[in-house]
Amino acid sequence: MKIYETSTAPNARRVRMFLAEKGVSVDYAQVDIVGGENLSEAMRAKNPTTKIPFLELDDGTCIGETVAICRYFEELEPNNNPLMGRNPLEKAEVEMWQRRAELHVMLPIGMCFQHTTGYFKDRMTPVAEWGEVSGKNAVEYLKDLNDHLADSRFLAGDYFSIADITLLCALDFGRVMKIRIADDQTHLQRWYEEVSSRDSAKA
Amino acid sequence: MKIYETSTAPNARRVRMFLAEKGVSVDYAQVDIVGGENLSEAMRAKNPTTKIPFLELDDGTCIGETVAICRYFEELEPNNNPLMGRNPLEKAEVEMWQRRAELHVMLPIGMCFQHTTGYFKDRMTPVAEWGEVSGKNAVEYLKDLNDHLADSRFLAGDYFSIADITLLCALDFGRVMKIRIADDQTHLQRWYEEVSSRDSAKA
Repeated sequence: MKIYETSTAPNARRVRMFLAEKGVSVDYAQVDIVGGENLSEAMRAKNPTTKIPFLELDDGTCIGETVAICRYFEELEPNNNPLMGRNPLEKAEVEMWQRRAELHVMLPIGMCFQHTTGYFKDRMTPVAEWGEVSGKNAVEYLKDLNDHLADSRFLAGDYFSIADITLLCALDFGRVMKIRIADDQTHLQRWYEEVSSRDSAKA
Repeated sequence: MKIYETSTAPNARRVRMFLAEKGVSVDYAQVDIVGGENLSEAMRAKNPTTKIPFLELDDGTCIGETVAICRYFEELEPNNNPLMGRNPLEKAEVEMWQRRAELHVMLPIGMCFQHTTGYFKDRMTPVAEWGEVSGKNAVEYLKDLNDHLADSRFLAGDYFSIADITLLCALDFGRVMKIRIADDQTHLQRWYEEVSSRDSAKA
């Protein structure tokens, strides 16, 4: 099997960090998304949405979407350092925080990047005002996360999960747009230092 | 336990349809989101994001996010008409299609609604141009879904799943913005007729 990715892309890092936590080793192939390699006919045949990363299994089956790739490896080895929850309630709480990290931080930061930098303007319609609003929405939500982390070591309580991986990768990518944890967000800062010091954060 | 929802909201319908498929009966409490009941201090204490639906367990624990609520019930009864996959590969494929239905159809249709109608303009910054682009993006993606459904009974092959529920609820909500399946999208139309005729679609 092989994962097609672009090593600098935040969603690619999410998958690498997840697999590093689980101790799973996979081959990677680099895709030049800036040059549009992902848009070629050959790549579209494998991956019609053209988004990276995606996983190609040995029989040719392709799985796209970051969390779907993570889900596959989690379900193959559910007892090997589970990162998506260990019981029904924890699975639901991880899903909740993973989605909040994604919908309120990762996605708006991605929107801010795409709509204010013009990076992919050859293949989408940038709306600069929306990019700016998105960046502000992400910054605003960091206040809620700081409040939550006042009483919680990780996003889902004492349990390190895929939700923390998503938030870390989103925040590190946010630096490109100068989106940073505020000085008075000490709980979020404490969380950031702990999560970014894990070995998997270098994957 | 109790689910707080607004019966006309598309995400509330996703949860009701999911639970109807599983034959799970839960009490519901209606929340007046137009009047801002979800923004009250009492409701924020339960549900800081203020989004509906959310699930309150008997011990007071609250689970927000549509898919997290579904995940909870799926994991409580994984063998009762599973809707999120029955093996690692199927779970990954369901996750992939659920996310595509959500990120490429439900979310842009929701953006189109919020940013073009001004429905929640008292609590967000509408960007009309973004709303229009979002609507167009959703319409564009229906072509890809039609192609996919030429060879696939449901989104994840022959297996009815949460992904189909998300897509149905998104498309029905899209009618508000006059987003409809095109006449020549016969595969998507065939899928729509089958899924919307399920008893659970009336939930």
